[in-house]
Amino acid sequence: MDKTKDSSLGIVETKYFTFSDGLELESSEKLSSVTLAYETYGSLDEKKSNAILIEHALTGDAHAAGYHKGDEKPGWWDDMIGPGKAFDTDKYFVICLNVLGGCMGTTGPSCVDPVTGRPYGAAFPTITIKDMVAAQLRFIDYLGIEKLLSVAGGSMGGMQTLEWLAYHPDKIASAIPIATTAKHSPQQIAFSEVGRQAVMADPDWRGGDYYGISFPSRGLSVARMLGHITYMSDVSMAEKFGRRSKPGGRPAFKFEPDFEVEGYLKYRGESFVKRFDANSYLYITKALDYFDPAGGRPLAEVFEGLKAKVLAISFKSDWLYPSYQTQNIVRALKIAGADVTYCEIESTYGHDAFLLETEEETHLIGHFLERVGKSESRLSREIKE
Amino acid sequence: MDKTKDSSLGIVETKYFTFSDGLELESSEKLSSVTLAYETYGSLDEKKSNAILIEHALTGDAHAAGYHKGDEKPGWWDDMIGPGKAFDTDKYFVICLNVLGGCMGTTGPSCVDPVTGRPYGAAFPTITIKDMVAAQLRFIDYLGIEKLLSVAGGSMGGMQTLEWLAYHPDKIASAIPIATTAKHSPQQIAFSEVGRQAVMADPDWRGGDYYGISFPSRGLSVARMLGHITYMSDVSMAEKFGRRSKPGGRPAFKFEPDFEVEGYLKYRGESFVKRFDANSYLYITKALDYFDPAGGRPLAEVFEGLKAKVLAISFKSDWLYPSYQTQNIVRALKIAGADVTYCEIESTYGHDAFLLETEEETHLIGHFLERVGKSESRLSREIKE
Repeated sequence: MDKTKDSSLGIVETKYFTFSDGLELESSEKLSSVTLAYETYGSLDEKKSNAILIEHALTGDAHAAGYHKGDEKPGWWDDMIGPGKAFDTDKYFVICLNVLGGCMGTTGPSCVDPVTGRPYGAAFPTITIKDMVAAQLRFIDYLGIEKLLSVAGGSMGGMQTLEWLAYHPDKIASAIPIATTAKHSPQQIAFSEVGRQAVMADPDWRGGDYYGISFPSRGLSVARMLGHITYMSDVSMAEKFGRRSKPGGRPAFKFEPDFEVEGYLKYRGESFVKRFDANSYLYITKALDYFDPAGGRPLAEVFEGLKAKVLAISFKSDWLYPSYQTQNIVRALKIAGADVTYCEIESTYGHDAFLLETEEETHLIGHFLERVGKSESRLSREIKE
Repeated sequence: MDKTKDSSLGIVETKYFTFSDGLELESSEKLSSVTLAYETYGSLDEKKSNAILIEHALTGDAHAAGYHKGDEKPGWWDDMIGPGKAFDTDKYFVICLNVLGGCMGTTGPSCVDPVTGRPYGAAFPTITIKDMVAAQLRFIDYLGIEKLLSVAGGSMGGMQTLEWLAYHPDKIASAIPIATTAKHSPQQIAFSEVGRQAVMADPDWRGGDYYGISFPSRGLSVARMLGHITYMSDVSMAEKFGRRSKPGGRPAFKFEPDFEVEGYLKYRGESFVKRFDANSYLYITKALDYFDPAGGRPLAEVFEGLKAKVLAISFKSDWLYPSYQTQNIVRALKIAGADVTYCEIESTYGHDAFLLETEEETHLIGHFLERVGKSESRLSREIKE
């Protein structure tokens, strides 16, 4: 018997939800119509009390688990979502939406602006993490869910999770921010900016109006290559590539990739441009850089009176979102008197660890969700009595 | 009285040395004629025993100290070289040459190939750290110097220093490798490669044949921006920029630099392309990546029987050339029985520390050179007696 198949969700499908009354954004601009791509796994219980929202990272999408018809690879967090897994679909109703500004089905710069009949391009309004969450809220309301059992995500997914914690605390019973930060450091902004400059340096970017004409593949590929370095660690790169040459001897041209690590990065860059929109990359990285829920105030203030339980996770070798940033969040939550558990996982995978250290995460998250579930049942019994 | 002027070398000049019998390279290709740009400070003593060779980093040049006529800024290591400084020009004869493959006066890809009458471009042969040092040796021989009192340099300068230690140990009485490595890790190769891909992604690069037609400014600027992130540290960026916006409020276009750190990087990128050749950037970063003096052997083997004294320095916050890489060099030197002193300097400046922590370096290097000088005098007296 195939054990993997047992715990797999099997074939899943991305669906779409449109609210045509539009969405007012943090920038005061308005999107006249918004479509959200989403997937759900498991069943919503009668009391609508078992819903968990999964938030994806920069280049993720709504397809978090299971297989799309014909695909060989499952969704990006399949190891974590399914029957008997951390986000156990036998117990929980798991939701994942592509973020606003994205390019995987949700309204973003590559979509047609209903007003002009042409793709938005750089005319798409500035998007923030707050806007992403506001759009998600509309969907949660549409489902009639008053309170999510949990919100969870790594990296940018962690930022969205923090946004829920800071600004919609009564809508969640718990939150699991992973490998994230309450605001980008200048080094993180700098990495984002180099990626953006690489995209915009490509003449095929054409100020963002490239749809149907060209695509800034070279620039976006460079941005992705850089991203990949920051997602791994010195150690994980050494283990994976060492100083090995690519098979086949020295390349014909002296500046072609020669080391295995160069070939790998080039391959990752070239694959990425086939699936991701360059403008979405610009908009979403800007959202990351501007994220700052405390906005100058002490972070503890935005968590004051918080009832939701928090499990915060970071990874020792993550130098893009170093542990000290999660520890700052945990400190603020503690100052605010919140129920917070923190774990730094030993891992050599760098930032990618949040996608790879699923065994450790399963252990932590599984138990945490059980505790949250019990506490919520008790609470609902108390309210009835 | 101006104290700075006192310890300054005042006006200096770059000079040129050409050997027209050419240079056979590690790749077996041959350069038919080689010009080296150099500067010297202080005077060579009668016995030609007080010469110190300073090796520059990736984008450095022969102008290590003093002022060029009309310039407001001195050479790149002026704090370290001059009367009474670490490399005391009252005592030592200090030499600095622009590396082979460079673009600051020494033969490189932007020079005219005497065979074709056109700039080399990508037809310039592959250059290695070994070749750079081989060219320097020709100049040292020309000066009639049989043994350098010391060779010193940071980053790529440290690699050249290691090359002297490994393959010309009898030509040096001592060596000072700083913030360097005996071979690039895959992470370091990856950063190099992203920079190169950024350059080559620029259509103005034209396969390297852009001279007189165009210049890949956008690509080279992106490469330099990335470089700058790796030269600083998370902490030094936080101290220097925080999350401050550039003065003047939000930019007119949403993807223009907004944070101070973005403006700074863009400025550094744009300044760089005015002074540095894109092909030189490709050639020299390749030389860094291929550097591996041990070539699969234990590093200690290449240092066997070494008589030269070594002072190795690294910096705690340097994550581009982390201390463990210098410690690997020190370990190998110790196994080989060499006279090696190692110091890790506490600094928040990251890799840039080798240019900035001059007070600490002055202390260490000043004393080290004195010890080497005394030991060499004793040695030469013993030989006479």
